Amino acid sequence: MPKIIDKKTIIQTRLFKIESLDIDFGNNNLHNFEIISGSGVGAVMIIPFIENDILFVKEYAAAINDYSVTLPKGRIDNGEDILEAANRELQEEVGFKSNELKHIYTLDMAPGYINHKTHVVLAKNLEVSKLIGDEPEELEIIKCKKDNLFNFVNEQKNLDSRAISCIYLLEKIIT
Amino acid sequence: MPKIIDKKTIIQTRLFKIESLDIDFGNNNLHNFEIISGSGVGAVMIIPFIENDILFVKEYAAAINDYSVTLPKGRIDNGEDILEAANRELQEEVGFKSNELKHIYTLDMAPGYINHKTHVVLAKNLEVSKLIGDEPEELEIIKCKKDNLFNFVNEQKNLDSRAISCIYLLEKIIT
Repeated sequence: MPKIIDKKTIIQTRLFKIESLDIDFGNNNLHNFEIISGSGVGAVMIIPFIENDILFVKEYAAAINDYSVTLPKGRIDNGEDILEAANRELQEEVGFKSNELKHIYTLDMAPGYINHKTHVVLAKNLEVSKLIGDEPEELEIIKCKKDNLFNFVNEQKNLDSRAISCIYLLEKIIT
Repeated sequence: MPKIIDKKTIIQTRLFKIESLDIDFGNNNLHNFEIISGSGVGAVMIIPFIENDILFVKEYAAAINDYSVTLPKGRIDNGEDILEAANRELQEEVGFKSNELKHIYTLDMAPGYINHKTHVVLAKNLEVSKLIGDEPEELEIIKCKKDNLFNFVNEQKNLDSRAISCIYLLEKIIT
């Protein structure tokens, strides 16, 4: 296993920490890496499943200055567990709560560069329940039938790869 | 469409640029975002497909200080197109070149926070051909039969969500 020889924080902003790591791969084979460290708490991404539909959201994505289609998601707040965070985000972003939540997978995202875990939660048995979140504007909700997901993936713009991974997991679990 | 009112570079390191954006959602509804901007060129991720096997690589992932299973991938070099970059990375990371490359999808990765595109390339008709890349150590190659991919996804640690998205696309395209 490679060894971290030195670790320095280059900058800590409101959201991101960039670190510089010197790593020894053995035989004095030293390499420097720059990485982005998350808060350590991670995020949730929820698959809301109701009457054979999956509920997606269309939201403004600042980094690409365009709208993106994704699943409801968000950071885990201090003191929350994964399922609590999932049920809160579900109510804030799509206006439902779930009576049957299951943590089905944990996704990495470019782990060579970013230390950030996204916990995937399947949400069934939904009922209407709205909480006010911190979204800068109301999110558009887009339904897709389970049997039409691959067409959906090809039609939509700027899908987050984590949402495509969730679609894969859903199709394997609910056949 | 929300409007970018102000944009400042917080820091530019060797790999990352963090920017601060003030965005107007209308009616003076102003929000500040921090984003990570890529080089603009993007990356490739390759699905090497040979005799019903997919070839994955196991590589040290600095941001999580652990090994990660993923598909061969890398940044597009200056002057390269997507398929040229894919064929170079394939030779550097798994020791094959492809005579049948196809760009099948483009993935986003948390586009609310990160501006980075990954172009997915399906590589068939492979022949042995090795190029020396910039990997700090030799990558271990892991084969998986196409029919066993879901077990593989569940057994492996620290899979990049982009690799899971590639598995989904492959299973839809090659049935």
